[in-house]
Amino acid sequence: MTAYGGIEAGGSKWECAIGTNPDDVRAAETIKTTTPKETLGRAIAFFEREGPVDAIGIGSFGPIDQKLSSPTWGHITTTPKPGWAHTDVGQEIRRRLSVPVAFDTDVNAAALGEHRSGAAKGLDTFCYITVGTGIGGGGMVGGQLLHGLIHPEFGHMRIPHDRDADPFDGVCSYHGDCWEGLASGRAIAARWGRAPEELEDDAVWELEAWYLALGLVSVICILSPERIIVGGGVGRRPGLLELVHREVLSLVNGYLDAPANGDIASYILPPALGSRAGVLGALALAELVTAQS
Amino acid sequence: MTAYGGIEAGGSKWECAIGTNPDDVRAAETIKTTTPKETLGRAIAFFEREGPVDAIGIGSFGPIDQKLSSPTWGHITTTPKPGWAHTDVGQEIRRRLSVPVAFDTDVNAAALGEHRSGAAKGLDTFCYITVGTGIGGGGMVGGQLLHGLIHPEFGHMRIPHDRDADPFDGVCSYHGDCWEGLASGRAIAARWGRAPEELEDDAVWELEAWYLALGLVSVICILSPERIIVGGGVGRRPGLLELVHREVLSLVNGYLDAPANGDIASYILPPALGSRAGVLGALALAELVTAQS
Repeated sequence: MTAYGGIEAGGSKWECAIGTNPDDVRAAETIKTTTPKETLGRAIAFFEREGPVDAIGIGSFGPIDQKLSSPTWGHITTTPKPGWAHTDVGQEIRRRLSVPVAFDTDVNAAALGEHRSGAAKGLDTFCYITVGTGIGGGGMVGGQLLHGLIHPEFGHMRIPHDRDADPFDGVCSYHGDCWEGLASGRAIAARWGRAPEELEDDAVWELEAWYLALGLVSVICILSPERIIVGGGVGRRPGLLELVHREVLSLVNGYLDAPANGDIASYILPPALGSRAGVLGALALAELVTAQS
Repeated sequence: MTAYGGIEAGGSKWECAIGTNPDDVRAAETIKTTTPKETLGRAIAFFEREGPVDAIGIGSFGPIDQKLSSPTWGHITTTPKPGWAHTDVGQEIRRRLSVPVAFDTDVNAAALGEHRSGAAKGLDTFCYITVGTGIGGGGMVGGQLLHGLIHPEFGHMRIPHDRDADPFDGVCSYHGDCWEGLASGRAIAARWGRAPEELEDDAVWELEAWYLALGLVSVICILSPERIIVGGGVGRRPGLLELVHREVLSLVNGYLDAPANGDIASYILPPALGSRAGVLGALALAELVTAQS
């Protein structure tokens, strides 16, 4: 019986699963992200114990090297996460488990998951954005996962930042007040001194919605997606997307017949697969690499 | 003998040509953009006089409706240009000249031209950006012209704007200080009180390079293009791209192995076809529609 392995390799945890699709997940495990050696060891042990699998798909935090022709294919590259810069993930797992491995970003994996069996079914061009500890974005254009020179890094674009209204410097170690630096969960916690889930003040979430909308407008102007899926721990906060909808419409200000004339709530919306989009998308990546090999 | 027609339909002039490629342009005419009726009439008269042609490609200022299934395919839609909102261009030309018509944005046409015979040969994913009276952007992703819900409108993303350093409000009638509102030729002229070509002060061009770089960083973070071609009357100013290179590297700040580790001068560069990219790309659009019909 066909069995794929999927890994959503996140900065705080790795979600591993074996199965073929959302309705057929036969084993799953959550592993805390510690050192590369320990984390990889535990993931490999899971697949050795619960497998075998025919192929493994990995959706990883980044930046990553996903160019098949590159000698460092399968590596996490210049991540600021301590201990993880220039770490081989894909080649190590392929070598240790002796199966084909597909390696892409966590957000491209989630996008693929939503395309297969979620909120992006039937669409050619759409984005998946995660707003959690960091901010990442990926998606499909013309029916193919979005790559390019490397891969998208939505979180590091610059957005307007009115320092009179919000004197916070931002938390990005590379850029300070880039999108992720201003609007990620880590930024919210640093600005307000408490974890996002403990913050209820309207001012917190109105500012957050404003920053998210500014970034989304850049995504709309550059990619013209047919839909934008917003996931992640912060993105899932009840009521937040409704505030974002209002700010996006206000920023677009009637320019472009779409999305203003459409139904904004079905244009910017949560993942149908919820927090499982990444790991289920990783299973779909494994299926893709099997079909190609 | 095969003959294609190409129109670069710009806000200030229309460039019309008949031929098949950059080395085979048999007739050309520049028409001043006045009213829709007069401008369309003169373009149609050119093709009646110099033709016949097998198909016509049109690269138009926008926003436009390029969805083949739409009843308003071929129209310029919500443009702020007086007299031109909701103008049928593509259907009118198709009806009057009785040939297949391809209709896309001016920047997608220019991108196609550069892909065929210019600075984007052999690339799958790249952008073409024009900085002239306005700012527009298009390109290819995975080897296909970038569409989506509608088409990209790079010029209307928001970028950081420090009003203490630059109190100028921006010129966009929809958004004020969006990218086009701050960095287009019209914005430069309004901020400094003279036409861009008459301005020599370093402060003018350092600010312009800063704004252009901010937008380009968003393009890099969202699309991860293999190359960015910058054309247009302002974009062509000698020395400007060198300033932009410096600002882009400074903004990226070593995050992402690329483009920082590559040769930035061959990453962000002028069109090989110069100001003819649009009309030559329009000829290539005509060839595409002929192949499909």
